[in-house]
Order: sequence, then C-alpha cells, then structure tokens
Amino acid sequence: MSNPSILILPGDGIGPEVMAQVTRIIDWYGEKRDLAFDVSTDLVGGAAYDAHGVPLHDDTMAKAMEVDAVLLGAVGGPKYDDLDFSVKPERGLLRLRKEMDLFSNLRPAQCFDALADFSSLKKELVAGLDIMIVRELTSGVYFGEPRGIFNEGNERVGINTQRYTESEIERAARSAFELAMVRNKKLCSMEKANVMESGILWREVVTRVHADYPEVELSHMYADNGAMQLVRAPKQFDVIVTDNLFGDILSDCAAMLTGSLGMLPSASLGAPMDNGRPRAMYEPVHGSAPDITGQAKANPIACILSFAMALRYSFAEGAEADRLEAAVESVLADGVRTADLLGEEGVTPVSTSEMGDAVLAAL
Amino acid sequence: MSNPSILILPGDGIGPEVMAQVTRIIDWYGEKRDLAFDVSTDLVGGAAYDAHGVPLHDDTMAKAMEVDAVLLGAVGGPKYDDLDFSVKPERGLLRLRKEMDLFSNLRPAQCFDALADFSSLKKELVAGLDIMIVRELTSGVYFGEPRGIFNEGNERVGINTQRYTESEIERAARSAFELAMVRNKKLCSMEKANVMESGILWREVVTRVHADYPEVELSHMYADNGAMQLVRAPKQFDVIVTDNLFGDILSDCAAMLTGSLGMLPSASLGAPMDNGRPRAMYEPVHGSAPDITGQAKANPIACILSFAMALRYSFAEGAEADRLEAAVESVLADGVRTADLLGEEGVTPVSTSEMGDAVLAAL
Ligand SMILES: CC(C)[C@H](C(=O)O)[C@@H](O)C(=O)O
Ligand SMILES: CC(C)[C@H](C(=O)O)[C@@H](O)C(=O)O
Repeated sequence: MSNPSILILPGDGIGPEVMAQVTRIIDWYGEKRDLAFDVSTDLVGGAAYDAHGVPLHDDTMAKAMEVDAVLLGAVGGPKYDDLDFSVKPERGLLRLRKEMDLFSNLRPAQCFDALADFSSLKKELVAGLDIMIVRELTSGVYFGEPRGIFNEGNERVGINTQRYTESEIERAARSAFELAMVRNKKLCSMEKANVMESGILWREVVTRVHADYPEVELSHMYADNGAMQLVRAPKQFDVIVTDNLFGDILSDCAAMLTGSLGMLPSASLGAPMDNGRPRAMYEPVHGSAPDITGQAKANPIACILSFAMALRYSFAEGAEADRLEAAVESVLADGVRTADLLGEEGVTPVSTSEMGDAVLAAL
Repeated sequence: MSNPSILILPGDGIGPEVMAQVTRIIDWYGEKRDLAFDVSTDLVGGAAYDAHGVPLHDDTMAKAMEVDAVLLGAVGGPKYDDLDFSVKPERGLLRLRKEMDLFSNLRPAQCFDALADFSSLKKELVAGLDIMIVRELTSGVYFGEPRGIFNEGNERVGINTQRYTESEIERAARSAFELAMVRNKKLCSMEKANVMESGILWREVVTRVHADYPEVELSHMYADNGAMQLVRAPKQFDVIVTDNLFGDILSDCAAMLTGSLGMLPSASLGAPMDNGRPRAMYEPVHGSAPDITGQAKANPIACILSFAMALRYSFAEGAEADRLEAAVESVLADGVRTADLLGEEGVTPVSTSEMGDAVLAAL
C-alpha cells in the first residue's frame, strides 16, 4: 500500500518559514515512527501569482483534490494589496476551500498554561480555556451571488450576498454536534436571527439537527452578544457553531483572548473521500505576518499543531497527535519561547528553527 | 419660541426603569437650568406589539419624525422570541433608524477610571480607554434586498443582501472624519475588502473622503483583525468607522472591553432638519436585560449619558452635557454602584432610583 499523501502549500510571508519546521517533523514521523508520507510542495497566494499570474494554478488545485491532506502556511502581504480582486492571494485560499468543499472549519481557542500571562485578559478568565469554534467555510457572504461593484444611477453600489441553504447549515451543524458529543456536550450557535432571515433559517435548522443529539445542551446567541460574552467570560463556552463571516470575526476574537495566537492551528474538513478520509486542509490561524518575515522570528507552533490535527482527523493517528501536542507543551513548560512570546523572566528566546529543534528533541 | 421637543420610547425590559431616571433629570434641567423640554412618551418594541400588534405604530413613527430628539430605552425579551420576524420588537427599532435615516451611529467605548477593575482585560490595557466607533446604521445587510427565506429545489434558502452605495459610505465616512477632527485626528476604517466587493468600495470611498481631511491619519484594517486588535491593545484606536453589521459586533466587543457596559450611551444621527438640528435618536448600548427586569437593579447611567449626548448633539448644550457627565463621574468616584458594578470593597449598592437620586444630588 502506498503512503498517505500530503500537499504542502507554504504560501507567503512567514508561511514558508514555519512550514520548514513542519517538514522536519513529518520526516521525523517517517524515520522514527514508521509513519511515512508522500509529500509534495506547491505554490499558493502571492507566491503563485508571482509565478503564474494567478493565486492558485489549476494544476495545484487538481493536486489538492488528489492528496489525503493539504497543509497550508499563510497567504497575502502588502506587495499584493493593489492587485485586482480576482487575483488577490486570498482568492487562492478561498478557491481551495470552495472546490474541496471544506464546509467545517475547526478553530480551537486554547490557552496554554505556560502562556496564560500573555493574554490581555485577566489570567483567571483564560487559564485552562479550551473552546472549539466550528465555522461554516464554503458558503454565506464569502461566496453568495450576486456580488460585485455595479453602476446604479449616478453612482456605484457594492453588493455581496449572504446565502445559506438548509443542507449547508445542516452539515455544518452536524459536524459541530459530533464534536460536542466527544467534548463536553455543550453547543452554542451564533447568528443574528433578530435582524437577518438567513439567521432565522440557521437557528431553525440547528434546532432541528439537535433532535439527533439530545444529549447535547444547545443554546443560541446573537453574534454581537457572542462577541461580548467571549470577552466577558470565555470559559462559559465549549463548542460554538456559526457561519462563515461571523466565524471569521468571532474565531479571531477568541484566538486573541488566549494570548496564544502564534500557537493556534485549524482544520478545514469536507465530506469523506473514496478512501474514507475527509477531504481536509490544515493551516495556522495566524496570517502571513509581513512585519517579521525573513527574520527567523516566526513561531512555528501553530503550523506544527496544524499537522497534529492532520494526524488526528485525516490519518486516524490520535495517539501520534497526542504525542506531538505533548512535545509542544513540554517545550513550552521548559520556557522555550520564540520572539512573539517574550516578556517573562528567565525564558530563552529562540529562532523559528531552534523552536523546531526543541520540538524534535522533545519528540 | 416653543421648547425643544423630546419623544421618549422606554420600550421593554429594563427600558422603562432606566428611562424613569432620565425623566427626572430632564425635569431637573427645566427647573434648575431654565432648559425646559416638551416631553412626550410612547411605545416601541414588545410594548408596542402588546398594545397595537406592531412593534412601532405609524402614529409613533410620525411623532418621531416631528420631534427634535428621540430617547429610546431598549427593545426585546423572551416573551417575543417566537413572534413572526415582521413584528419582532427589533423591527420597531430598525424602522425608526431607517425612516429617520440615522446613518451615523456614535458608540463611545470609554473606560471610567473608577470602574477599570471591572474589565475582563488587564487594567493597564483599558484604564483611560476612550474610543469612538462610528457605525453606519441605515444600510448594509440590515436593510438590503432581496432578503427572506425562499424555496429552492427541495429545500429552503435564507438570503440577505449586503449593499452599499458610494453616497451611503461617503456620508458615514464624512461624519467619522468630522469626529476625528475634534478628537485625536486618527481614524481606522474596518471592512473585509480581501473577501467582499462591498468592502472594496467601502475602502475606496473612505480613502477618497480622506482627501477633504488631510490632517486625519487614516488606516484600514480587515474586520477580523480589528476584533483581534480591539482585544489585544484597544488603546491603539481613537475613531473607528465601519459598516452596519461589523459595527454591531465590533462595538459590542469594544463596549465589553471597558467593563462599563451599563454605562455606555449611543447617539444615532441623521441629516439636519429644517431647524438645523440633526435628526437624532439616543439609546443606551445595553439591551433590555430581561434577567433583571422589575428588580430595581438596572444601572440607569447608560441611559442618563445618552441624554447627555442629546444635550451635546441635538441641543448644542455642550456645557450642560459636560455638567451631567461630570455629575456621573463624581457619583462613581464616591463609590455609588448599582448591582452590575458590585465586587469591590467599600462600595454602596444602590437601586436604580437611588442611582438617579445620587446623580441629581451631584448635579
Ligand atoms: C485570508 C482570509 C481570506 C481569511 C478569511 O477571511 O476567511 C482569513 O481571515 C481566515 O480567517 O482564514
Ligand atoms: C436590537 C438589535 C436589532 C440591534 C442591532 O442589531 O443593531 C442591537 O444589537 C444594537 O446593536 O443596537
């Protein structure tokens, strides 16, 4: 039988720098744990635009559809700010999400014990925090038609369409309920049903799916109140499910609460492929960080933990995922820190690759 | 000459309780400062629905168009959760905003010195915080057509439309630049121009309006990053301008950062009327708080400070607004606290009307 396959798309900015450390860890699994992967690498985002004039080449898209999992670094940067909308780096990422049909985006907001002091929130509010945000990723205002800038009378009008079908809501809800079942059986759904009809349908469908998961305690919250409650008392949440745009904002808000932005991974999952594995892409929550690109300062942990999520969700290697996560925790407990996590007494500032060294040593 | 006129719409939940204290303060101004107002009162939200079967009666709407300023308490409550969308309490509020054409919603997020400990953020990050969020209030996904729940094949689809014309963006931007000019000349505009064409037009128009305010330092930020930055380091902001939906979420997030939710007022301003005053509605940022309704626990300060904003923006009585705000600050400095602000040592818990007493005494 052939090895499971991974397509690595390092992307822009610090993407390649953090991904280089993940590659070393993938190699380690092949050598030491008899878990070899067929790894290929390609371009996405600004890097793809520079090479091909598009932020994702059709060949790359085709490869992404064939592999068992995609690992993505980050896309975007000031160099590409003035590009036409249709070829912006982000379009490459959005095309992957859409064509791979990755409807369930899992964004853990977890506060690492060793790092609770980095949160802007009071320590007692975030220590031990462990939320999972499930963001619908293939629909809503990100993809709805009509969209564009049109002439209307003497002026222009910018239009985007928020659009959710029952089945789109249902599959996202179902994946959130499944997660709630293996966590604390508590799910909060967020929308603006008081203002938006799409939110009414969202709430109705989530409530209907709840019938299949009676053990889960379901609550509903308006998204504006959700943002408030995340800031006020984040530990009241376990799993949160929400739409693409609210998920974008609320998950970033939640990620920042933890103080561990450089630490947070994400998984974007679709329907099972022929081999039973879900179609999947894994990426750190942080962006391309142009301000620190090329300085060996980037924290590779979010990207490393994204690979841990791949081990768990794509390769059914939960024990190996645990091993990798434990290695990261022990490195942090030892006080090893990249530049984003300085400020404490007695910590050793390390470079991106030294952090990779430390994780490999802990493995 | 006749007195300036105010329409009071106490609404639902704690709305009537907090508004009762404002009425006393309005009376005080008539008696002690020779500043008499013609005050009328009417129903909005669930209270209007109970009386008339609609969340805002046409007669009330007509009155709102005639007065110099509207003061609104709060709308909504669990009793009305299952009402049809078209008659939900919120529709009354939204109709007022739309028909009065209140395009510029000013939401100060201010941290009161005496209350900095109430923030979930570390004190040094919020002490002295004073942000002004300008939220576009009459357009965007709140009002765009088409909207509704439609049949499509075998299932239903929920649709809302995000829609901004150049002139809608321009007038909101202009009001934000004007505010920046009388504050710290720093404006940050937030959208998702990397994903939404309406965000591209937003950014373009804001940039164009900037030419008329060259002294203002303008920056642009994606709204998800905006949420992060508000949590990470809120003091980096002075004035923020954003659209209706992002403004809903980001202003609630910012309000919660201050720890002073029961303290925060808002002003919604439209174009000048024949008498030169802007069409205007003032309301507290907090909601109807059904959990504490009828217990004399509600904090009336947000509503009182909303009247202070009315003095400043509708009645050109800036010195009287300062007087009222100073009275509130001195009451807080004296340790007078409603139930939402307990937790410190040596504070006196007071009821809603006792807080009103204290503010009147300080005046
Ligand atoms: C880069 C951008 C298109 C993307 C999004 O808006 O979804 C990012 O913010 C994210 O959250 O993954
Ligand atoms: C009550 C509701 C309709 C309203 C809104 O969504 O605008 C509220 O959340 C607000 O921010 O004023």
